[in-house]
Amino acid sequence: MHSIKNTRLLRALSNQPNDRTPIWIMRQAGRYLPEYREVRAKAGDFLTLASTPELACEVTLQPIRRYPLDAAIIFSDILTVPDAMGLGLYFAEGEGPKFKRPTRTPADIQALGNPDPETELRYVMDALRLTRSELHDSVPLIGFAGSPWTVATYMIEGGGSKEYVNTKKLMYADHDALHMLLSKVTATTIQYLTAQVEAGAQALMVFDTWGGILTPKTYMDYSLRYMQEIVSSLKQSHPDTPITLFTKNGGMWLPQIARTGCDGVGVDWTIDLRDARALTSEKVALQGNLDPGVLYGSKARIKEEVIRVLESYGEGDRHIFNLGHGIHQHIDPENVEFMIETVHELSPAFHSNSPTA
Amino acid sequence: MHSIKNTRLLRALSNQPNDRTPIWIMRQAGRYLPEYREVRAKAGDFLTLASTPELACEVTLQPIRRYPLDAAIIFSDILTVPDAMGLGLYFAEGEGPKFKRPTRTPADIQALGNPDPETELRYVMDALRLTRSELHDSVPLIGFAGSPWTVATYMIEGGGSKEYVNTKKLMYADHDALHMLLSKVTATTIQYLTAQVEAGAQALMVFDTWGGILTPKTYMDYSLRYMQEIVSSLKQSHPDTPITLFTKNGGMWLPQIARTGCDGVGVDWTIDLRDARALTSEKVALQGNLDPGVLYGSKARIKEEVIRVLESYGEGDRHIFNLGHGIHQHIDPENVEFMIETVHELSPAFHSNSPTA
Repeated sequence: MHSIKNTRLLRALSNQPNDRTPIWIMRQAGRYLPEYREVRAKAGDFLTLASTPELACEVTLQPIRRYPLDAAIIFSDILTVPDAMGLGLYFAEGEGPKFKRPTRTPADIQALGNPDPETELRYVMDALRLTRSELHDSVPLIGFAGSPWTVATYMIEGGGSKEYVNTKKLMYADHDALHMLLSKVTATTIQYLTAQVEAGAQALMVFDTWGGILTPKTYMDYSLRYMQEIVSSLKQSHPDTPITLFTKNGGMWLPQIARTGCDGVGVDWTIDLRDARALTSEKVALQGNLDPGVLYGSKARIKEEVIRVLESYGEGDRHIFNLGHGIHQHIDPENVEFMIETVHELSPAFHSNSPTA
Repeated sequence: MHSIKNTRLLRALSNQPNDRTPIWIMRQAGRYLPEYREVRAKAGDFLTLASTPELACEVTLQPIRRYPLDAAIIFSDILTVPDAMGLGLYFAEGEGPKFKRPTRTPADIQALGNPDPETELRYVMDALRLTRSELHDSVPLIGFAGSPWTVATYMIEGGGSKEYVNTKKLMYADHDALHMLLSKVTATTIQYLTAQVEAGAQALMVFDTWGGILTPKTYMDYSLRYMQEIVSSLKQSHPDTPITLFTKNGGMWLPQIARTGCDGVGVDWTIDLRDARALTSEKVALQGNLDPGVLYGSKARIKEEVIRVLESYGEGDRHIFNLGHGIHQHIDPENVEFMIETVHELSPAFHSNSPTA
């Protein structure tokens, strides 16, 4: 940890004093940046971009060059895992991700591969190694995966979904099969995240984008239980690498998420951070939670909303400023810069270790 | 009220003893029923079906004929209001509802009509009158509208949306314009719901499908505030007509929803009814909240989950059994029958006024 120059993110995640609130942005390497669009256009398509280490490294570094952010996050996709398990990921124009071979029957689940991350997912590991080298220890590099539940919904539906018909069919008509699928995805995800740490990731994040479509009981049974397995396993093998869990629309389940032993919890904008802090009993760092839509506003409005987020967390060193979900593609990069500057300017007042304290 | 033979729904909404838990199903007149698909095929398209009083009445009655349900809900759509305000509703094949003329600028908002329900929305009123007559006071007839916020998102986006880019732009860059739009939709919705009561609706429901994409503060400012206006106005003019508010993904805001003076609150499946009951302090009836996906399960599984819902509410007369959202189109009608029978069979134990108590 001491080799990294900017330790704010890692300090927040390990409950150490900070001079100001660290900030990074979900999907910070993305289409709102003209330099990203240029590399993406040259690559031709998203998958080529994500699977070519030099290009993935380049777009990972772009927001770090442009803005004074406190962390980089490797450019990749949560669906690389099921792709490596044999489903055949592709992107249909204007339709988002799709799988050639969805996983719906017990036989489909039996047939799933258990990919070796350094072979089938080597492009991610190479991108991590290259990016670590190019970052020159300026800021920590975050690795990530989808939650087994979220990844499984895509595997079962064959892509994005509105009502999750096939997933819910499996859940309510053959839950043993669903558990078998989730166990396999969990095992692969643990190997994948472990390999990411060994390739240079200095913090991990698990994105549970669709945990919020579950009931309280099925969330515990089908989503949190498997994220718990990931946290327990990684904490055993790599106790010094902090892990953040993020369930979108999971505000009501924050107490349980915080009890997994994770270091940080991502919070979307549907809950005040003061409530999230109370619900998690100060056990974890909280990451979030500006509504990405705020960045469409005027600078005065952005400042007002940044202050609202900082004040809602209040005084303390365990807040990581971020959006409540990924940045939208039509945001003006200048507004992003203004948001970051505002956090730099106003957050020291919330920290006892600030130069002005 | 006494003219209606089956008063269970109205009794639950007015906190009077019941012999068992009333049940109806969101989207009970819908594509999962073969007799619905037949009428829909004859009508040619959804809009013809919804705007022809005889056909709307027919499909409203279909589930009542097939199942021993405790309420009918008029077959209509939350987008009839903006259609009547001049936006030009149409359904693009496989793409859901769209508007020819979305509402994005202050000039668009200024130009909106204030339709007279008995003229521009007469087909809904005629359908209500006809259905009331055909029901012969067997069960109460529910009228409904979308919440101003939810309707406004469709008006601004021109259809369904994923990130609500234009809505959030308006919210954060020109909130006066958004408030003007919401005020206009609210005024029209109040007239529309008032006319529905006068045409025969015996209970009202307001669907806030997209309130859950807001922050706590913007939910209060842009969604709940306008639903509050609707409740206050209807309670003034028609104090005996119960109103139920339903914000999908609004579990965390149940205390505030219950304080509007509404009679019932719809609850999706992401929260336990025991928690919902505690959060609403027994001020209101609670409607819900079986995960619609449960109906893909075996009868044993359906029974188990129905029991879970009944037990999570516990003893008391203010529970209205329902799904947590609309029924899916590929559900087997036999499973729906089994769910209803199970509620009939097992819910008396939760009521002090049951024959067996």
